[in-house]
Amino acid sequence: MSAKQGLVIVHTGDGKGKTTAALGLLLRQWGHGLPVVMLQFMKSRNLRCGEHLAAERLGVEMIPLGDGFTWDSANLERDRRTAQECWAVAKEKIQSGQYSMVILDELTYPLNYGWLDIGEVSEVIRNRQLGMHVVITGRNAPPELIALADLVTEMRKIKHPFDRGIAAQKGIEL
Amino acid sequence: MSAKQGLVIVHTGDGKGKTTAALGLLLRQWGHGLPVVMLQFMKSRNLRCGEHLAAERLGVEMIPLGDGFTWDSANLERDRRTAQECWAVAKEKIQSGQYSMVILDELTYPLNYGWLDIGEVSEVIRNRQLGMHVVITGRNAPPELIALADLVTEMRKIKHPFDRGIAAQKGIEL
Repeated sequence: MSAKQGLVIVHTGDGKGKTTAALGLLLRQWGHGLPVVMLQFMKSRNLRCGEHLAAERLGVEMIPLGDGFTWDSANLERDRRTAQECWAVAKEKIQSGQYSMVILDELTYPLNYGWLDIGEVSEVIRNRQLGMHVVITGRNAPPELIALADLVTEMRKIKHPFDRGIAAQKGIEL
Repeated sequence: MSAKQGLVIVHTGDGKGKTTAALGLLLRQWGHGLPVVMLQFMKSRNLRCGEHLAAERLGVEMIPLGDGFTWDSANLERDRRTAQECWAVAKEKIQSGQYSMVILDELTYPLNYGWLDIGEVSEVIRNRQLGMHVVITGRNAPPELIALADLVTEMRKIKHPFDRGIAAQKGIEL
């Protein structure tokens, strides 16, 4: 593997900082003038977080795909279809060859729910253009993803303010 | 502790993503138009990483303080003095009351080397203005810091490309 080969980076674990560290990578890429895109599998399109406000101001594509996800076990077929539609967008971005980094935020959830096929996802990632980095975040990264990855970090919760009843805050989680 | 109280956030552990996740918090703050400053205790002023290029373009203060650090065990007094000078800058920023978030990147190292007094550092952080978040990164966060913190995440290395001889890359580590 040459230094020119892009990395597959996974942020997993039950702690904070998985998406946040992906945002940090996005910022470093942007700082170098490199084209980066972030696809968010679980964030509703209606949510306006600090990261979305920032991305807009940076001129970086950040696409919340979660709109339509109901997590409605009464309608698993619809959830599966929505996940497939989200993946189609991600796949198109990866195969476009236009990005130095593609961030697949919270991709592990539709994988673990069985809505997406890890085999197909792995293949698309493995066949990406030389030099493209792929960053994947989410709890419980499946073993196939860990095997595929070059860099895996587990974010472990040591202490969390939610445990003491502190709500999510603007500019921290939001 | 009210929701208005700022958090003390610690990113520690041997894995990647400690500074990177701090950059993600910086980006969320900036996205909300909140004033944030990042002080880097170990980065040389001569280093031009993606985060510095980004910060410049964002108009965010990011101050590498590490210039002058030699890690020269032959001159411990000089190292200690430099660390104290760095801390004086950080303390001034915290006490200025001008920031929603102060990031003390890699502060654990001068603490662990005994160049800074954890008691004094804790006191300054504890007495900060209401609503100011303080983010501290670095390996081996001392127990006093963990005790003081509201949110502690350990970044654990599961797999790392350096293990396979892949060098640091622009827009990832740099």
